[in-house]
Amino acid sequence: MSFEEMWAALEPVGRRPDGGYDRFAWTGPELECRAWFLDEARARDLEVERDANGNLFAWWLPESGERGDAVLTGSHLDSVPGGGAFDGPLGVVSAFAAVDALRAEGFAPGRPVGIAAFAEEEGARFGVACLGSRLLAGAIDPARARSLTDGDGRAFADVVAAHDLDPDRIGPDEDLLGRIGCYVELHVEQGRALEVPVGVASAIIPHGRWRLDFAGEGNHAGTTLLRDRRDPMLPFAHAVLAAREAARRHDSVATVGKVHIVPGGVNAIPSLVTAWLDSRGPDDAAVRATVRDVHEAALRAGADHRVAVTLAEESYTEIVDFTTALRDRIVTVLGGAPVLPTGAGHDAGILSARVPTAMLFVRNPTGVSHAPAESAERDDCLAGVRALAAVLKDLARG
Amino acid sequence: MSFEEMWAALEPVGRRPDGGYDRFAWTGPELECRAWFLDEARARDLEVERDANGNLFAWWLPESGERGDAVLTGSHLDSVPGGGAFDGPLGVVSAFAAVDALRAEGFAPGRPVGIAAFAEEEGARFGVACLGSRLLAGAIDPARARSLTDGDGRAFADVVAAHDLDPDRIGPDEDLLGRIGCYVELHVEQGRALEVPVGVASAIIPHGRWRLDFAGEGNHAGTTLLRDRRDPMLPFAHAVLAAREAARRHDSVATVGKVHIVPGGVNAIPSLVTAWLDSRGPDDAAVRATVRDVHEAALRAGADHRVAVTLAEESYTEIVDFTTALRDRIVTVLGGAPVLPTGAGHDAGILSARVPTAMLFVRNPTGVSHAPAESAERDDCLAGVRALAAVLKDLARG
Repeated sequence: MSFEEMWAALEPVGRRPDGGYDRFAWTGPELECRAWFLDEARARDLEVERDANGNLFAWWLPESGERGDAVLTGSHLDSVPGGGAFDGPLGVVSAFAAVDALRAEGFAPGRPVGIAAFAEEEGARFGVACLGSRLLAGAIDPARARSLTDGDGRAFADVVAAHDLDPDRIGPDEDLLGRIGCYVELHVEQGRALEVPVGVASAIIPHGRWRLDFAGEGNHAGTTLLRDRRDPMLPFAHAVLAAREAARRHDSVATVGKVHIVPGGVNAIPSLVTAWLDSRGPDDAAVRATVRDVHEAALRAGADHRVAVTLAEESYTEIVDFTTALRDRIVTVLGGAPVLPTGAGHDAGILSARVPTAMLFVRNPTGVSHAPAESAERDDCLAGVRALAAVLKDLARG
Repeated sequence: MSFEEMWAALEPVGRRPDGGYDRFAWTGPELECRAWFLDEARARDLEVERDANGNLFAWWLPESGERGDAVLTGSHLDSVPGGGAFDGPLGVVSAFAAVDALRAEGFAPGRPVGIAAFAEEEGARFGVACLGSRLLAGAIDPARARSLTDGDGRAFADVVAAHDLDPDRIGPDEDLLGRIGCYVELHVEQGRALEVPVGVASAIIPHGRWRLDFAGEGNHAGTTLLRDRRDPMLPFAHAVLAAREAARRHDSVATVGKVHIVPGGVNAIPSLVTAWLDSRGPDDAAVRATVRDVHEAALRAGADHRVAVTLAEESYTEIVDFTTALRDRIVTVLGGAPVLPTGAGHDAGILSARVPTAMLFVRNPTGVSHAPAESAERDDCLAGVRALAAVLKDLARG
């Protein structure tokens, strides 16, 4: 299967009429992507491994049969709601294509080459990004992961149990981690910062997610006087505006993209508005100051409207500076590719706490991501495959 | 079945763990309420009629067999999401109990007495309040009603067809309307305006619903610079705050209780935010000025953020002054009950355009409505039944 054939096979899976993708962890389309991964691995005689956290691996072992010090590449197959086609799958498809290219030229690896598809990278179903790699790397308490629930109230533990994982066995896997010599993730660039086909990551800027609950009093939209209202929609709206102001002030970004309203009726003052704040910035201080300002504004507006406001940190990732030696080596292999930071989180960011890690980016002409307009030119994708093959060849040589 | 027994039979139907009710038109719990209505009617040998719009009627005919000039009472059985127990069902249960009381004292009506349960009064499923009575009274174009869709995208026409209604036959029913001499709806009061057990309605203040669409550009929450964003959440937040300010300025009320976000991911700038505005006020000018101010504020904020804003009126009901002669007669029968307006829409408001109409209100100690805390004391409910029985007796005497 060529890059094009693999891409065409994945393209219709989970695609909505508007062109966006719904591939949520352990739902139909994502399970179809997983089946595709296993088929591609088996078609290449790669050894398949599913770890205790639901992450998938396909291993190309060296002649020696050695399993340690592996060069791992890959990405993820799940999507945000209505996401783009490239975020995740590009790294997995490119990995298979790079292995094919190396085999076609007769390359024999001296170290294992692995292809990974990490589970629930987007956190679109259970609310914690990079859940699969976090569990593997010990970056989340397994008990907390078990109790995470999806939008229908189903617990992570129950969902994975229905797919033959033992929820009591999820968590860090030191044996597997110990076998990974380094991880190189290829990913579509998610802004307009890359002006050549392929670049190399310097760092992932700090990012996190916070949940804001605004608890007021449900009531009738027609019969309740303004002065009797405890309408949580009002302090929520203040918080949305405060987030933009705080981001401007602190040179960060802040976004409210998900809101849940109880009861959600046209003619009912809500009793509860829950909003999620995503914030990222150049350094820890910028992000912390942004969130603090939003929280203070929400509390002030909550007091004005007799609405209780609580803030909970759902995830936070400090700045990830990718391994300098590995990055420099890759830049050299690629003949001086540009180096750039990213505002997006990745499994590579999680794994970097445990193994030397690097990332390649493929140019995105629209600069759009997490939406149907996310894109990459086919020629740039093929340049990405060539770059990844060159990097794997350099790292996995005997 | 006594009032208490009927109440106890309905009480668990569609009740959520938080005590709120989900009884949406033609869903399981509402169908259970309909079955209950038919059982109660048949247990009393009342003649059952389901009109072409899915409204239910139970007729107590006079000895003469006369079917015209009927005294109709009743209300509705559906709820808003997480609504209270009383809004709707109190009027239907009280109607059966009032008929029982009149029969127990040997009263023989000279005109038909009917009990109605109107369909989709709240508009919680298809977005248009009083849909059943609007169709009956010719207050909505049947073609528009057919094309209304619920939250899952199912068309009204398809849903009612699945329940043995012919979608091509929905619409005004002049024969049925011609048989209704007057309509008296009993309803729980929805504010704190009533200080005795039972009152009589003077008017329904003007009210309407508008849909605001904020169309921006979906993008990645981490990698999109503030200046590149076209985030529809920001003008939406401005509109929420503008609605409260406008309501204060124009002595109206304005509420945003339902919002739909596309795609709705934590780490995605939305491409579209759709919000529903409910506004009501003492007169037409106040409501129109409120909506105009919200629209202007939304457009201004939309322009600031390069977000397209559109406003669509989904429904509007001018002030309903209930028939003075009927109201005065009822006040006299009730020995001088207080007369008060309401900010809530009712089927009585729709029918008043076609037949003489009145309403009785039962005191609500919490003043809360459309929420679990909606309440009425049992003694006040029984006072309501006695009042309704007295009114029906006066109106239906030979």
